[in-house]
Amino acid sequence: MLIEILCTGDEILTGKTVNTNYSHIARRLADLGFAVGRGVTVGDDREALLAAFREASARADAVIVNGGLGPTVDDLSQEVAAEAAGVDLVLHEEWLERMQEFYTRRSRTMPSNNRKQAMLPSTAEMIDNPIGTACGFAVSIGKARFFFTPGVPREMRRMLDEQVIPRLLAQSGLKGVSRLKRFHTFGIGESRADEMLSGIETLAIDGAVKLGFQAHYPQLETKLAARGLDAADLDRKLGAVEAEVRRRLGSFVIAEDDGTLEGVILSTLGAHNGSLAVAEMFTAGNVAARIAPLDGAERVFREGLVARDLQHLCRTLGVVAEKVEPEAAKAVAAALAKRSGATHALAVLIELDQGADRLEFGGNICIGLAAPGTLLARPARMLGGRDWVRIGATEMALDALRRHLQGLPVDERIDFERR
Amino acid sequence: MLIEILCTGDEILTGKTVNTNYSHIARRLADLGFAVGRGVTVGDDREALLAAFREASARADAVIVNGGLGPTVDDLSQEVAAEAAGVDLVLHEEWLERMQEFYTRRSRTMPSNNRKQAMLPSTAEMIDNPIGTACGFAVSIGKARFFFTPGVPREMRRMLDEQVIPRLLAQSGLKGVSRLKRFHTFGIGESRADEMLSGIETLAIDGAVKLGFQAHYPQLETKLAARGLDAADLDRKLGAVEAEVRRRLGSFVIAEDDGTLEGVILSTLGAHNGSLAVAEMFTAGNVAARIAPLDGAERVFREGLVARDLQHLCRTLGVVAEKVEPEAAKAVAAALAKRSGATHALAVLIELDQGADRLEFGGNICIGLAAPGTLLARPARMLGGRDWVRIGATEMALDALRRHLQGLPVDERIDFERR
Repeated sequence: MLIEILCTGDEILTGKTVNTNYSHIARRLADLGFAVGRGVTVGDDREALLAAFREASARADAVIVNGGLGPTVDDLSQEVAAEAAGVDLVLHEEWLERMQEFYTRRSRTMPSNNRKQAMLPSTAEMIDNPIGTACGFAVSIGKARFFFTPGVPREMRRMLDEQVIPRLLAQSGLKGVSRLKRFHTFGIGESRADEMLSGIETLAIDGAVKLGFQAHYPQLETKLAARGLDAADLDRKLGAVEAEVRRRLGSFVIAEDDGTLEGVILSTLGAHNGSLAVAEMFTAGNVAARIAPLDGAERVFREGLVARDLQHLCRTLGVVAEKVEPEAAKAVAAALAKRSGATHALAVLIELDQGADRLEFGGNICIGLAAPGTLLARPARMLGGRDWVRIGATEMALDALRRHLQGLPVDERIDFERR
Repeated sequence: MLIEILCTGDEILTGKTVNTNYSHIARRLADLGFAVGRGVTVGDDREALLAAFREASARADAVIVNGGLGPTVDDLSQEVAAEAAGVDLVLHEEWLERMQEFYTRRSRTMPSNNRKQAMLPSTAEMIDNPIGTACGFAVSIGKARFFFTPGVPREMRRMLDEQVIPRLLAQSGLKGVSRLKRFHTFGIGESRADEMLSGIETLAIDGAVKLGFQAHYPQLETKLAARGLDAADLDRKLGAVEAEVRRRLGSFVIAEDDGTLEGVILSTLGAHNGSLAVAEMFTAGNVAARIAPLDGAERVFREGLVARDLQHLCRTLGVVAEKVEPEAAKAVAAALAKRSGATHALAVLIELDQGADRLEFGGNICIGLAAPGTLLARPARMLGGRDWVRIGATEMALDALRRHLQGLPVDERIDFERR
């Protein structure tokens, strides 16, 4: 089954807004094994929309249209869809009532132009939008089934998962439900992860699980997309594969699904009445900035200290250290733990290479960690330019703390360091 | 003249990579007043590429193709372009030599598959790529002129500005050169800026300047796109408009062109042998993170301190304060200046609303600034949810420092605050 994605709107066409809706839709479909043949973007223009609808209907089996469902005059999707389908635009009473309730619940009167959002092609199937006033709809144009979704990302995402994908699965003849299991790792590149997981798909019952990766430095996302008859069937099909991926990726897994490295640290520290202080140099407060703003961090995060100069950092904490080395990182962490009263103190010291920023530019990183009964240092060298080193060092510091909290080796070699 | 943008590659089609090349190209063209009629994305697939080339050639006057110029077998742009143009693919000796030199300068041998990158349609005009091995080219297919650009963003951006846009201007019959003048502001929304600048375009000689905005909270970019015969003509045409925009936007202008708020602060402090220390609460080190990693910051940035709890922050600095209020912000800033030895100390105190995060969620912000002969506080209330408040408070703190350094009023009301 061939699918196309058609994005509408002047903001997208002119590049004012980066089209992240497209990449979200395409990724979700690819995760499920659907083939996306083409992406098309057109503006809020009647002729351009009509041409794009007609052309897509001649090529594809299914077309996902995003945007153009709003209440203003430049939102043309329903109207042009009706024209392309050769049917009238009619008022969908049920959705009009839903919108009126939506406004009544908020003690507001519905503006009259919202009525436009309940006008659908007469042959359309209304698709629910539980969190907005733009309903979606499905309608056949030529040989293709068109699915219209709102441009607001959270509305589109929910409608895609709950309403559109089940219909696509049904249309494609695929029965049942789907699930995406995600593992987030730090320290391994895509090609190494691919090797570590070689043959993993064959563990799945009747090939129902598809493996994929998405790299966003310094993290790598490993995805298992599965299809099954129902939730129990999915549990059964994914179970063995999930467990084996978790085992093979081992201590590199920083979080799963919607979890994050910083979230895991915060909840683990919180569960043990732990608290945290951080001292940073070139990472410039980025380690603190990952933890401190989180909901609940006020009970855990005690203090962050940033200094670009090692001597200033040491003076502030009453420590004597000459250069970035393990003993200095330990001394800074210990002094910070003492001063702040935090159970855990993390120090990220960096000595940058001299000279202009370029790919070979690097830095010597030394992470220090003071925790009850523990005082350790983790040295590393990273290359790749200033930003790359800063991003890598921030992640490595957080990961060192996570590894310690989970009883894992803190000095396991990662792909991004040179020794 | 109608332009289309055609992006190629499986990474883009499947959503693995967000298509920021598209938005860059579309924005640059829109800035110059060109009409982009459609964006199309296809994968590394011969049939799909050929169909897309043929269809675009029937609709558009010019087509910018991005990607598919690499040395591997899935890079098909040259080959399919030749087929669509109905001509042979021939070796471009000049580019082959350039590539060989490229490798020789790096003391490496050119892999044999790079030869493929010098194969161009026989009717093509080669377009220089001074920073990579993928040359661009222009070729006519049907009624349209196609411009092929590399997928590597920095190579594409340079080729677009230096090579493609001049050819598009020539093709459109527009003579001369173009320039984009940018003003970055903090504190005014797009609609207010639009009002403040009403009628500004009429100041330009023969309508040669086009006004545009791009909002990326909390900053707003105001753009003046101009076309002229040569650089002197551009100076003359832009001069009066530029000066008037600068005057009307006034103290809200934080930087111009490639300048940044943090860059302006760093260079202003550096020029006066000033130095900086920062104390933050809910902004979690984000103020420090904007300054500390910059090149040259090691001479200016002394210290950053983060604490989620006001009492912890006060205790660390030996200050007594009960709540987030102007006197507390001043006391924290003064104590930090003293302890750090920095000439300038910035304190960002925040008292967050209680309860769940939602659009109405807000916080009371109090910024304190200690500088030679100055001790001031800037209170503000912001709404819009946790992230919005944090981002806004970070910018407001940096902007308060910029305003003080430039002798501008620090407490000028901004659009994002509620009083």
